[in-house]
This record gives sequence, structure tokens and C-alpha cells, in this order.
Amino acid sequence: MEPTRDVPHLFDDATTVHPGSADGTWDVELRDEFTIVNGHPNGGYLLAVLGRSALAAVAAGAPADDRERHVVAATATYVSPPTTGPAVVRTDVLRRGRTASQVRAALVQDDRVTVDVVMTVAALADEPAAWGSVPPVELPDEATCRADSRTGRSALPGFDEPPLAKVLRVSFDPGVLSFLSGEPSGQGELRAWLSLADGRAWDPLSLLFAVDALPPATFEVALTGWVPTLSLTAYIRALPAPGPLRVRFRANVIAGGFVDETADVWDSTGRLVAQSTQMAAIRLG
Amino acid sequence: MEPTRDVPHLFDDATTVHPGSADGTWDVELRDEFTIVNGHPNGGYLLAVLGRSALAAVAAGAPADDRERHVVAATATYVSPPTTGPAVVRTDVLRRGRTASQVRAALVQDDRVTVDVVMTVAALADEPAAWGSVPPVELPDEATCRADSRTGRSALPGFDEPPLAKVLRVSFDPGVLSFLSGEPSGQGELRAWLSLADGRAWDPLSLLFAVDALPPATFEVALTGWVPTLSLTAYIRALPAPGPLRVRFRANVIAGGFVDETADVWDSTGRLVAQSTQMAAIRLG
Repeated sequence: MEPTRDVPHLFDDATTVHPGSADGTWDVELRDEFTIVNGHPNGGYLLAVLGRSALAAVAAGAPADDRERHVVAATATYVSPPTTGPAVVRTDVLRRGRTASQVRAALVQDDRVTVDVVMTVAALADEPAAWGSVPPVELPDEATCRADSRTGRSALPGFDEPPLAKVLRVSFDPGVLSFLSGEPSGQGELRAWLSLADGRAWDPLSLLFAVDALPPATFEVALTGWVPTLSLTAYIRALPAPGPLRVRFRANVIAGGFVDETADVWDSTGRLVAQSTQMAAIRLG
Repeated sequence: MEPTRDVPHLFDDATTVHPGSADGTWDVELRDEFTIVNGHPNGGYLLAVLGRSALAAVAAGAPADDRERHVVAATATYVSPPTTGPAVVRTDVLRRGRTASQVRAALVQDDRVTVDVVMTVAALADEPAAWGSVPPVELPDEATCRADSRTGRSALPGFDEPPLAKVLRVSFDPGVLSFLSGEPSGQGELRAWLSLADGRAWDPLSLLFAVDALPPATFEVALTGWVPTLSLTAYIRALPAPGPLRVRFRANVIAGGFVDETADVWDSTGRLVAQSTQMAAIRLG
């Protein structure tokens, strides 16, 4: 833990939840800083806001617990893009369990559900995997990636310094930068280092933001219009060590107007800390 | 399409939904034939029952549509194991869209939610992938696999001919059969051919059953007790051709008491038709 700051980090401030007027509701404020194209909040940011709501719902009315609880699995359905500003999260604890609790959380604006998630909440062990591994993606050091990422953004529709670029430091592997100059390589994979710009350390909650923080991996296939996520699943696997994250985000199959994309996220020690898969709608050509 | 039969196929009969007493509810009957250990219905079967309910909910009140709609994405949270017998599915159409509709469906018994899903419903194109591929898993022909699968089931806890074995013909690759004799190979991967025993052809709805039809892939890591799925995500990618499916089901990382497992499903022509990922709780040693 770093020393207490007088000013909260932006991520913590922007994901604050307050008990709402009705039981199981939480008032939130979706912040301009976390928007991407067309002023819409980033999907990973919304997941983190909903995750914090889910944790608050599980903590409320639960007996004191000696183990810290985190969101370990989340499935989100993006129904319609919310706008920035006030919103309400309606939570419903589906199960309280010793190993895991499950919570449904819906982000509501103007009495309409815009994002619907179900989260699994449990303790996260700070120990190596018992079996299996996903070897960390190889990419040049963060400084090298950072230097190359500063160029050529203007070719990317809507990605000419979105507000999110001030919150999140994305340092792309130079090997995947061809899409930024308007010429996708065709490999369908993005690789990058991720840091929060104000120096906040990564934790299980902000990993929910990290799993969907990159542009569509399909931008390395074709520079289409926006690729809206319909459904996203994230698993948080371990407490991340301090330092930047490595992310590999890849498109697998584009068929029938849909694409599946998977993300793997490692901490600075190379431990797999998060995974995600999503299905998005895409129009080629 | 095969000729009309006098007797419906078991899968169709066992996933029948009838309009319920309240708006948006559907009465279903969970069948003994689809149970695995301890008499609990198989998770993929439940997904198919919920999928059929979601399709009914989207069709009800929708304008006539010249395109057939299917479940193309499903995220399911398994809250508590339902029992066989009557159950109610409560559906809530979150969005009706030209490209995709989204429906929440909850399986309810004794007024408690046992499975909570959100489904994305859309048209499925019957054409090759526009980009990308997942090469089909290689395994010996179905007859060879079938012959070897008939042996040694007694070593597998609870898998000594569960009722489901009469519904679904699982023909394992002989290379992954070590777990059946009580000695897991440690590779954490199962490979098999899948056919419905009464000859019913696979379709997008029954693919929801197929993505979670195998025993836990972790049985090839360690013969633990049951490995309950907490969260499952399935994508249906294409209309399957006639003939048996190939399935590869693998565990990736076991950490902190949880495991993620991914399934890829190909039709008899080698086309990727479904994908799934799930997180389950596991106790090793």
C-alpha cells in the first residue's frame, strides 16, 4: 500500500458509489475523463463502477469477514451506451456463499438499463498458480513502447487523443502500431503496457478497467467504424504486483457480423492476473 | 432439415417452453435424462432451456422477421443447482435491435433464481468466416474414439454412466482417456466427438448444450470432487453442418481455488461453430 494521499486517485474518485435512495441501489457519477469516442464512457470503466457497486452490495448486511473480497468474475451485457453524468446502479445479491457470492448489477439511466452485469465476488489468493500458466506476452520495455506510441494517432477514427488517453498510459508494442498510421497489419493483435497516468497502482478492481482498455483488436485487421461490444466476460485471477501491466488483446474469428476478442493481462512480474473475452458487432468493408 | 418425425427428438422435447401464468414467464420441465452427478441437470442443458425461453421472449411481440434468430452469445451465472421437475423461466427483453436483441432469463424454482443468464439474439450467417480461424482439433475418427470410450468409466467419481450418457454420445480421443482409469495425464485437455444419441442434428440451440457437455477438463489434471461452474460464457458462431461435432475442452490456469476452462467446437466440416469459457471452483488435494 502506498501512503495515504490528500487527493484521491482519479480512478478511485471516478468509481465512487454512494448508497442510493432505494435498498440495493447505488448512486454513481460517470466521468468525462473515462470517455472514448463520441463521449461515451469506456466499457471497462463501466465494469469497474459496477464492480464497486457489487462489492458494496455484498459488504452491506454481510457478517464481518476477515478476508478481503474482490470481483473474480464478471459477465457484462452492453445494452445501450450510457452518457456521462449521474446514474444509478441497482444491485441484487443472488447468492451469499462462503467461497463466493454472486451479484447482479444494472447500470440505469432514465429508468433504462444500459449495462447489465453479474459478478462473482470472492477472496483472491496471493500465491502462485497451482497448475497451468499462460506465458506473458513478449514486448519491448515500456519506455521504448511509450516513445513509439506517441506518433500517428490522427489516422485512427475517433482515437485522436480521446479523454481516456489522459487517464490511462497505453504504451503499444511498436510491432502493432501499423494501425495507428492507417495501415492495419492484418494480424489482429494488440500488445501494450498499461499504467494509470496518475501513478495509482493496479488492484483487482482496476483490472476490470484494464481488460477492456485498448482499442478494438480488429483495428489491426481493418479500420472499420466503432466495434461495439455486446457481451464481455472478465476473470480476475490474482492480486497484481506493483508496476505496469502487460496486455495482449486479440481478435480470433470474424464471422456473420460478429467478432470474438480475448485479452490476457499480466502484472510486472509476469503473473497472469486477468483474462477477458468479448463478442462485438463489426461491419467489414 | 430432416423429415418430420412422429415422435419429437428428446432434446426438443426436453427443452420445450410453454407461456407461463405471468407476462414474460415460461414454464419448463427439467428432465431426468439430462442429469449428471447427484441428479443435477447438466449446465449446458440448462443453457439450452434458457436459450429457448429467450428466443420465445424475443419472438413474442416482435414484428414478423424474415431472418431466423438464434442465441449468438450467452453469459450464465450458476447460482444454485436446480433439481429436475417443473421450473419457471422469467425473461426480460433488455433491448430489441435490428442487428441484435438482448434478453435476461432467470431459471426459478421455489421462487429462487438458480441460473441467471443474459442472451444476445441475432441472425446467424451461413457463410465462411470473413477473417481468422481456429484450426479444428485433430483426433482419430469417431468410431475409433467411440470404441475406446466404452472402457474404464468406473474410476471416475459419479461418472459411472450418468443418465446424460444415454442422451449424448461422447467419443473421447483415446489420448485423453487416462483420467477414466483414475490416472490423469496432467495435460488438462479433453478432446471428443459429440453426437446426440437419437440422431438429432446439431443446431445453434443444441450447441448451447454442447459447449458444456464434457466432464471438467481438470479431471485430466486431478481427480477432485465435482468442479462447480460459477460463470459460463458461450458464443455461437455459425450454423453447424450435419454430422458429429468435435470438441476441445481445456483448463488453462488453476489459482486461488478457481479454474478457467475454454471449449472450442467445430462441425463435421471443420468450421468453428461455438466457443465457451467458464470459471469454476476447484479444490485440489
